[in-house]
Amino acid sequence: MTINKKAIALHKKFRGKIEMRSKVALATRGDLNLAYTPGVGAVCLEIAKDKNKSREYTNRANQVAIVSDGTAILGLGNIGPEAGMPVMEGKAAIFKEFAGVDAFPLCINADSADEVINFCKQIEPSFAGINLEDIAAPRCFEVLERLEKVLSIPVFHDDQDGTAIVTLAGLINACRASGRVLKEQKISISGSGAAGLAIARLLIAFGAKDICLIDSKGAVNKNRKDLNRYKLEILKKTKTSRRGTSKEECVRGSDVYIGVSRAGELSPEMIKSMNQHPIIFAMANPVPEILPAEAYEAGALIVATGRSDFDNQINNALVFPGIFRGLLDFGIKKVTTAMKISAAIALAYSVKKPKNNSIVPNITDKKVVKIIANAIRQK
Amino acid sequence: MTINKKAIALHKKFRGKIEMRSKVALATRGDLNLAYTPGVGAVCLEIAKDKNKSREYTNRANQVAIVSDGTAILGLGNIGPEAGMPVMEGKAAIFKEFAGVDAFPLCINADSADEVINFCKQIEPSFAGINLEDIAAPRCFEVLERLEKVLSIPVFHDDQDGTAIVTLAGLINACRASGRVLKEQKISISGSGAAGLAIARLLIAFGAKDICLIDSKGAVNKNRKDLNRYKLEILKKTKTSRRGTSKEECVRGSDVYIGVSRAGELSPEMIKSMNQHPIIFAMANPVPEILPAEAYEAGALIVATGRSDFDNQINNALVFPGIFRGLLDFGIKKVTTAMKISAAIALAYSVKKPKNNSIVPNITDKKVVKIIANAIRQK
Repeated sequence: MTINKKAIALHKKFRGKIEMRSKVALATRGDLNLAYTPGVGAVCLEIAKDKNKSREYTNRANQVAIVSDGTAILGLGNIGPEAGMPVMEGKAAIFKEFAGVDAFPLCINADSADEVINFCKQIEPSFAGINLEDIAAPRCFEVLERLEKVLSIPVFHDDQDGTAIVTLAGLINACRASGRVLKEQKISISGSGAAGLAIARLLIAFGAKDICLIDSKGAVNKNRKDLNRYKLEILKKTKTSRRGTSKEECVRGSDVYIGVSRAGELSPEMIKSMNQHPIIFAMANPVPEILPAEAYEAGALIVATGRSDFDNQINNALVFPGIFRGLLDFGIKKVTTAMKISAAIALAYSVKKPKNNSIVPNITDKKVVKIIANAIRQK
Repeated sequence: MTINKKAIALHKKFRGKIEMRSKVALATRGDLNLAYTPGVGAVCLEIAKDKNKSREYTNRANQVAIVSDGTAILGLGNIGPEAGMPVMEGKAAIFKEFAGVDAFPLCINADSADEVINFCKQIEPSFAGINLEDIAAPRCFEVLERLEKVLSIPVFHDDQDGTAIVTLAGLINACRASGRVLKEQKISISGSGAAGLAIARLLIAFGAKDICLIDSKGAVNKNRKDLNRYKLEILKKTKTSRRGTSKEECVRGSDVYIGVSRAGELSPEMIKSMNQHPIIFAMANPVPEILPAEAYEAGALIVATGRSDFDNQINNALVFPGIFRGLLDFGIKKVTTAMKISAAIALAYSVKKPKNNSIVPNITDKKVVKIIANAIRQK
């Protein structure tokens, strides 16, 4: 049975992946006296006197909403909120299993940034943080920017910053494994949505200079008139040594290819046109830009994907549980660029001796959560 | 230690009452292949082809949102969404423990019926039902009426219909225990919000004729100019044998007093002014209109409250788990009046031989869920 068929069978058998549970006993009327009426009234009144007490007397302090409008589910596109649920349940399951965080998947109907923003403002009293997920660019940028201003709880858009942090960690270690200097790499990024732009921003903040972005129209360059302000910002901050307007021209002569686009975007010929022994992060999910075997065949030195079934899994599941553990435990309101870099470095150096086929920790390694949480605390 | 102090200590110790759990193993990369990427993509695509498949492949079919705007928490009033959380967590814990339903407490910021309605429309893709909770009247009536029209999942306002069903069941059995005929009882209802009006409606549908409503201004009667359309509707459908404008005049000469108002609304003198051996349901939470000992002292034959620490606990926790179990299991879209009466009768007759001090099943009796669920199926 293929992975896909097994996955469908698993989801059908268990009817999804999460459940709600009571933490207290409810067997007797005495139990109910305390958990429900009349005792619960006294607890409500304590919180009415001081709203912050909801963090002591309810599960709120450990509770995160995973909010998606279903417009950019995995690499599958705008397939709607119902179809996004399996991903959000997967994240909720990972949140609990790896970081002890209680996350509710909320896939919602929303036709605009405003509607997502209003929704998040409405649920603020019930949660200690919001994980935005799989919201299409550029809507996701506006949503995150505006929510960071109006909410008193932290917001993290995992597709942007989770992906950026794990990618930077992976690239730091790909360079350590291959004896290269990250800041000198010529980097192409395929995909200029949430993930691609956030990766570019974080690589620039870390010191990378030569970055060429690729979107659905080809290479992002100064001659184009159709660029949104987010792409223009990146353009301003980078010098790209490669010339041309197509994706092929952008990739030619690169040292590093970072794909957050879709299956088929990277061909063996394109890899052959890169500088010798290129580093290939083909991170489109569920199907990468190119399969690892083909990439190695075409001359790649290091190949990573987002998937659990290949070596070098560069997946934000390595990051988001630890980020939220840190945000909740240390009362952090906003994830700064310094925190993101600190998290990436900590994640990278948690691997003592990176090798070409093991540049990041195993996704099931439970040490990682604590390492990331502590890394954002220090800043 | 008092119940209140114990309740506060319990909530502090466990940091609330609920948690999220994974239903599937996540120990190995093989597990993650199926629960997360790449396998999860195939599951998403199945649902993208047919949205209804989210009921097979995710937890949606068993998932209910408990939505409150915090405007009418227990009998405590408009204390806000944060302060409502302990009640909603209590309901979520009861939902799971008694009916196996996974309920998410969502206490939200909302300043109007429109905002509650929009919120519920937004979350529809993630849930199989919505339990409205502790929303002030008359806002709650508009919210329920409009949501029943626009949503394709069932909505139940527990404070209205849950309370009405359990009250009718209790009254059926109080009559059985005391050898009276329900339709002939002279009934006073103190509290004309969500619960009071829903109780009046259901009692009328069951055949009661002589009902006098009481609100904060006194008796609801035809001479008043300040009545909302919901109170006017009840007035049209009842004949009240008692005269007068005050609550005391309304209660005088009644056989039955049903309180869903607040502590202190019913005095021993008022009980003494009722017909002989009156039935007193003092269901305000957390503190009833009158304490049972005082009511018995004043001549009551049967006294019930909403609390777990007295006999005769008439609490909607006897009803909502079974209602939702039935709604989810049998794909019911709307709870009709016939279903509510059927549920009340089934609940009442689950007690073989009602006695004055045991007119309803114990709230911890797990048989009740199945009885209620099956009762709404038949209609």
